[in-house]
Amino acid sequence: MARWHEFVRPKPVRPFQMGLPALDEFPRKLWARLVARKARGLSAIAMVSQDPAGYAPLRQAISGYLAIARGVRCPTDQVLITAGYQGAVGLFARTLLSVGNTVWFENPGYFRARDALALAGAEIVPVPVDQDGLDVGIAIRRSPRARLAVVTPSHQCPLGVMLSLPRRLELLAWAAKTGAWIIEDDYDGEFRYHGRPLPALKSLDDAGRVFYAGSFSKVLSPGLRLGYLVVPSSELERFQRVAELFAPSPSLLDQMVVADFMIEGHFARHVKRMRKLYAERRKALISALRIFFGDEIVLDVPLGGMHVIARFVAREDDVAMAARAQSAGLAPLALSLCTAGGSRQSGLLLSFTNIPVEAAEREVRRLHRSLR
Amino acid sequence: MARWHEFVRPKPVRPFQMGLPALDEFPRKLWARLVARKARGLSAIAMVSQDPAGYAPLRQAISGYLAIARGVRCPTDQVLITAGYQGAVGLFARTLLSVGNTVWFENPGYFRARDALALAGAEIVPVPVDQDGLDVGIAIRRSPRARLAVVTPSHQCPLGVMLSLPRRLELLAWAAKTGAWIIEDDYDGEFRYHGRPLPALKSLDDAGRVFYAGSFSKVLSPGLRLGYLVVPSSELERFQRVAELFAPSPSLLDQMVVADFMIEGHFARHVKRMRKLYAERRKALISALRIFFGDEIVLDVPLGGMHVIARFVAREDDVAMAARAQSAGLAPLALSLCTAGGSRQSGLLLSFTNIPVEAAEREVRRLHRSLR
Repeated sequence: MARWHEFVRPKPVRPFQMGLPALDEFPRKLWARLVARKARGLSAIAMVSQDPAGYAPLRQAISGYLAIARGVRCPTDQVLITAGYQGAVGLFARTLLSVGNTVWFENPGYFRARDALALAGAEIVPVPVDQDGLDVGIAIRRSPRARLAVVTPSHQCPLGVMLSLPRRLELLAWAAKTGAWIIEDDYDGEFRYHGRPLPALKSLDDAGRVFYAGSFSKVLSPGLRLGYLVVPSSELERFQRVAELFAPSPSLLDQMVVADFMIEGHFARHVKRMRKLYAERRKALISALRIFFGDEIVLDVPLGGMHVIARFVAREDDVAMAARAQSAGLAPLALSLCTAGGSRQSGLLLSFTNIPVEAAEREVRRLHRSLR
Repeated sequence: MARWHEFVRPKPVRPFQMGLPALDEFPRKLWARLVARKARGLSAIAMVSQDPAGYAPLRQAISGYLAIARGVRCPTDQVLITAGYQGAVGLFARTLLSVGNTVWFENPGYFRARDALALAGAEIVPVPVDQDGLDVGIAIRRSPRARLAVVTPSHQCPLGVMLSLPRRLELLAWAAKTGAWIIEDDYDGEFRYHGRPLPALKSLDDAGRVFYAGSFSKVLSPGLRLGYLVVPSSELERFQRVAELFAPSPSLLDQMVVADFMIEGHFARHVKRMRKLYAERRKALISALRIFFGDEIVLDVPLGGMHVIARFVAREDDVAMAARAQSAGLAPLALSLCTAGGSRQSGLLLSFTNIPVEAAEREVRRLHRSLR
């Protein structure tokens, strides 16, 4: 197990902390109103007659959203509601993998999913990521018969690069040829500040090899622990069965409220508002980092997402740096904790979502001071 | 996989349907009020700073409840909130079992858990159940080195017998000696209509081999999918880690509302009220069954729980009978679907929880007619 665990405990929320939406901008009052309304109308019958795959109107709303926003066309019954992304990982680990199966995993990559798959008995094959995303050629050479590839094509976690179109086609062709599965974790797919995003990898999946995973954790709130998995029709029955036996669908009330939130248009408005807010906070953070750190860092600014990466020219131990910042009450994450073997990239991952524009200089000054 | 699956889909709720509390008596208004209150006060910070083991005040309330009601003493940190009992099964299947491990399982027994464990790669050893519960002697002879025993000591599922004290001690001694684990599924532990229940098996667990699983599904509502698992301290860290990676704790809002429901005394009152109601409904159902079926059946009436068992003297195929009743819009469950190999017991499981006293004769008449 990697050491990320001791660094990411979320209480209380601290400046630069990764993986959180802007907590000060969560539409609390609207949310409470929707919850109260649903709770009043909630019948006992509705509560027991739940489909293990999830609340149908929510699945339908997600299906509609994916068609418009991500170019993914899927009938409602292929959308399974999960307990966030980790719930989806639990589901596909149980369904697609046997002990000893090999899994391509981006390196650096999302540690929680990587550790979960390793704990489930998978043999993780770390695959380097360059400017075009996961290096499919290297992966094929290292492990041509892998059972599964887990990728973040829209916005690689944590580097923020996009999987290029040629790589996407190469990956899909490999899966179609070998019968491997692909998990597309559409991490941070909603937030992009320059140019147009590519549609989801799933939109090109003619052979039916791609599972598409989305989550409301970063768009609405991680406290909901609501996500979804689009399952190829060939695997649907198996997944529904495993969901029913091991991980029945999450809270009906939460699902109902998110469904209303989407159907009544609040979701689209909220994403749009957050995109604007994050663009401002991102800009303010970048500007403050340049002021205080100047030539000490090379700033890696992805086109989307919720964080930037500061790479230190002096190439210090980033885990030690993160620990120093942590002692000062800040929560940058060391990039090297996201890597598994091979050449460790070093740097600090800095989220801007919870740093208001007017606080950027103050927090960056604190960071700079803590690292000296 | 057994064929229970096609018989237990819950929509809409039909007479005699198993595993449901009285839906007409769920305290909807009170519930909606508690939900609305919590939703108004719910801060974004609270939503993100969740402990993967669950909402602390709920865990504390459960710990207090278990001490009083079930004789189980456990510190709050040993209580993990799960997605109902199936969520607990997912957790211990991932944590305690490797593919090929043997598991003692009551026969007849709770099919969902049995199928889940089989699907997780366990080798199920069906163990006969007699008037004293699971026959520990037979189990030890058949599979002395089993890794796990899954039992329902308070009220065996589905026969309703209680695991006797000598058997409890024999089971605990075996686990302590061999290093095996015991899952105590305290199924229907809350409802008992005659005599005093034994304390939970867990209360005798000096060697720390017993996991105690409880659920709010049958006491409050299966729609909540909230349960809990008391984890021996030696295994706590591992369970918390697996919970975080595969099955983060369920909806915070639901957990908060159940916590309030317990802390404010509604829970104890509700259980007491349901116990009285179920005693009445049970009596009415038994009386109606005797009127319409007379000598055709031998009635098996457990001291507790939410159903009775009608065994037909003519020994017909109970699955065929259940199917006939199902065509008439009724939902008895065939006892033989709960058995795995060995001599199949035959009969119909009939829940009384959703049959009001005044409807008992009418529904039993329908049942009788459907079976002719």
